[in-house]
Amino acid sequence: MIIVGEKINSSLKGVTEAIKDRNLEFIQQRAIDQAENGANFIDVNCGTLIDEEIEALAWLVETVQKVVDRPCCIDTPNPLALVAALKVHKGKSIINSISAEKERYDVMMPLVREYQAGVVALVMDDEHGMPKDSATRIQIGLNLIRNLSNDGIPIEDIYIDPLIQPISSSGEMALVAIDTIIGIRAIYPEVHFMCGLSNVSYGLPKRGIINRTFLAMAMLAGLDGAILDPGNKQMMAMIFAAEALLNKDRFSRKYLEVFRKGLLDF
Amino acid sequence: MIIVGEKINSSLKGVTEAIKDRNLEFIQQRAIDQAENGANFIDVNCGTLIDEEIEALAWLVETVQKVVDRPCCIDTPNPLALVAALKVHKGKSIINSISAEKERYDVMMPLVREYQAGVVALVMDDEHGMPKDSATRIQIGLNLIRNLSNDGIPIEDIYIDPLIQPISSSGEMALVAIDTIIGIRAIYPEVHFMCGLSNVSYGLPKRGIINRTFLAMAMLAGLDGAILDPGNKQMMAMIFAAEALLNKDRFSRKYLEVFRKGLLDF
Repeated sequence: MIIVGEKINSSLKGVTEAIKDRNLEFIQQRAIDQAENGANFIDVNCGTLIDEEIEALAWLVETVQKVVDRPCCIDTPNPLALVAALKVHKGKSIINSISAEKERYDVMMPLVREYQAGVVALVMDDEHGMPKDSATRIQIGLNLIRNLSNDGIPIEDIYIDPLIQPISSSGEMALVAIDTIIGIRAIYPEVHFMCGLSNVSYGLPKRGIINRTFLAMAMLAGLDGAILDPGNKQMMAMIFAAEALLNKDRFSRKYLEVFRKGLLDF
Repeated sequence: MIIVGEKINSSLKGVTEAIKDRNLEFIQQRAIDQAENGANFIDVNCGTLIDEEIEALAWLVETVQKVVDRPCCIDTPNPLALVAALKVHKGKSIINSISAEKERYDVMMPLVREYQAGVVALVMDDEHGMPKDSATRIQIGLNLIRNLSNDGIPIEDIYIDPLIQPISSSGEMALVAIDTIIGIRAIYPEVHFMCGLSNVSYGLPKRGIINRTFLAMAMLAGLDGAILDPGNKQMMAMIFAAEALLNKDRFSRKYLEVFRKGLLDF
């Protein structure tokens, strides 16, 4: 499982101020904590600081990579902020995100190619926006993978986001996302899938158990990446259990190791 | 989800003595607790009391049904004990279990038919025993359903048990069971699936999280019945979360109701 730590995001409490104040210690401690808890990538997002996003995003990347040897997931719809961040980034980043919307695709795709980055690809296009059904999402995803591939992006650098929407607004939304993963993976088994989880439980109480149960189901379907809080010990424990069950953890070695360390909530 | 309460089983601590002593209160309290916690069926098993199983099993059925309005899952390989229990049972029981093994099939099938019971059907036959791969399990399951159906058992009375074996002995055993469900359900969408869960985690520490994660995955695959302890609040909470995610709980009403009652561990 590819874990992207979500905790450096200006929409979270305290982070906006830390970025505005260029509070090195605050940001670096979050990066260190997430890396220690198992993040493979550190998401950086300062989208709410519109006026200074370009400088701030590059500062975040540099600040994070001074203390952890992890690549960033650079999370912005602003191509100028993206370029500034890519220029200072070390290693292979993930760009979050592209879609099949023409304007977005045409701006983002060349950057993905130039910087040989991974890319989160949303199953959205200009005609359908965010489709409600899995058939349309699958079709958009397949087109997007083909186009990215034709434009020189290796398929294993693509992380399809099946778009997680709340089951409280429409009961079938979890299944729509899961069916999207199953449908695309049947055609492109080497593509990755990556998404945030918590939208699925929006509007319901005790969201954690909904998120975790959804994660187990989505991992069976083929989800192999998630943007989450690696400090969530129940979620992380379930990920190790799921990898053992999916035969992705030989002899359950990693499961047994994290159990022995006693750091997670089993 | 069809919940079969597993706590009246002579292999469990205290139960053997309670059955031997014909301790009415002990057995009835277990039945009441399980029904209150959401069991749809009460499993009765006294297989370890070989000498007196015939009398004891019938006594268990009567004792349970005096205090709860739930049918039993009559759990025995002994046809004489089964007949004795069926004779006193009220309502539509589930017989646990039949298989494609000829001798077992020929003895059990007529009883299933005569008493119009549901039946747990193991994907085992004489040639393969308990097959290691899902392809063979699917083939045995499909044959078994066809034969039971030809012999007059309605398909919706069949509960296929995909056979849960420990991932600690072989890493693919969880996926083998899940693929068995998916394969059989593709052909017979109206058949039920039912199994115990805890075998999957045998030999590993912190078995609960493995069992729960497996349950979420198996429910996505199509598992709609499980033999478990309905007093396991974390497991039951996850079942409600899973049903909401699978769009089997309109407007998440049941999930919200159990949350409000505050009885489960979310």
